[in-house]
Amino acid sequence: MVLLRRGMATMASLKRSGKVVCIGRNYADHITELNSARPKQPFFFQKPTSSLLLPGEGPVIRPRGVNLHYEVELALIMGKRVRDLNSEDEQAALDAIESYALSIDMTARNVQNEAKKKGLPWDISKGFDTFLPIGNVISKAAIPDPHKIELYLSVNGKMQQNDSTELMLFRIPRILADISKVMTLEPGDIILTGTPKGVGAVVPGDVMRAGIRVDGKELEEARMEVA
Amino acid sequence: MVLLRRGMATMASLKRSGKVVCIGRNYADHITELNSARPKQPFFFQKPTSSLLLPGEGPVIRPRGVNLHYEVELALIMGKRVRDLNSEDEQAALDAIESYALSIDMTARNVQNEAKKKGLPWDISKGFDTFLPIGNVISKAAIPDPHKIELYLSVNGKMQQNDSTELMLFRIPRILADISKVMTLEPGDIILTGTPKGVGAVVPGDVMRAGIRVDGKELEEARMEVA
Ligand SMILES: [Mg+2]
Ligand SMILES: [Mg+2]
Ligand SMILES: [Mg+2]
Repeated sequence: MVLLRRGMATMASLKRSGKVVCIGRNYADHITELNSARPKQPFFFQKPTSSLLLPGEGPVIRPRGVNLHYEVELALIMGKRVRDLNSEDEQAALDAIESYALSIDMTARNVQNEAKKKGLPWDISKGFDTFLPIGNVISKAAIPDPHKIELYLSVNGKMQQNDSTELMLFRIPRILADISKVMTLEPGDIILTGTPKGVGAVVPGDVMRAGIRVDGKELEEARMEVA
Repeated sequence: MVLLRRGMATMASLKRSGKVVCIGRNYADHITELNSARPKQPFFFQKPTSSLLLPGEGPVIRPRGVNLHYEVELALIMGKRVRDLNSEDEQAALDAIESYALSIDMTARNVQNEAKKKGLPWDISKGFDTFLPIGNVISKAAIPDPHKIELYLSVNGKMQQNDSTELMLFRIPRILADISKVMTLEPGDIILTGTPKGVGAVVPGDVMRAGIRVDGKELEEARMEVA
């Protein structure tokens, strides 16, 4: 009963989402593996709400001709309308968050690389339907410190990503400050905080398992097939 | 009374918007004026729903350090959930549209140029609060052919943009087909169809007037201050 009610709250929160804003290049080793430049400040992009894949809704669909990459990320679900947050005010940032979730920022890497080369928007590469699998809502109480959890993702049983959010280059208060100086954040908005190293390709038939550990204990795990 | 009810329907439609998808470089002369490459196929980007400025909500705010450009565009408001539309099926495309609106795709041109150069996303340059002024909803009955209307925009009384939607490189069925092959379109979603030549900068104190003419008759005009 409690679980069911939690599940329903989840759906409601996620369906309320007005926008999904994602930070790029927020873990040093991931920047290295993609041969990207290290950003002097956080930069961000959007995924459309139509790309959301809620718990139980799988699989992730690989579009034809796409080199499909996974990027496991910690998602923040906003609980307040905020703008111009101060990056030094950690409490204000945490207060603006309603809850957390596990997410995978699925990316058409070949389309993204082409866009980068031509100076074109990233939206297509990040925005296909099913490109944003998201897990159940995780209460703030379950994550005492969002900069001290482990994110992991395995493909067909082989661990590919497994790092602590301690490694974020820009921490959550800075991320929320920078976004909210451009775009007002609203309740239900979802923020993806970047992916650690280990991204790679998946093909139809692959099974991803992604999860969050807190103090070495598994808090959330989701299984996601690729079709 | 009728006017009031129309106004309320407007707000409701626009507030239902889940995403705003915009076509870039869809008029040849605008491509030339920005020294851009002519696209072989439509490409698109998103503006966040938080950038919407509904009728009566002005002014447009210029962020500090931003070279702020106007781009007048015809907006489509979707009425159906559609995906994988066929670009040859003009009727299906028009059926999926609920109504039209006048819009201005405000753009931080210097931020966009920097992003293009670095291969970074366009989202910041397109996504500040107030960067999407939109007019009243225009019924489909009032626009018999969306490829045969005139869009115009003046700044401080001087006409800057004034062209027919006949000049679109990719017409509406093709635009909707290409977007819907990537992202499911949902009722309330807003599509911006590109801007004709004549874009330029505005500064605080400037007054823009934008409008739509059908058969030489003014159908909609909106006044928008810059602050
Ligand atoms: Mg919404
Ligand atoms: Mg990512
Ligand atoms: Mg535009």
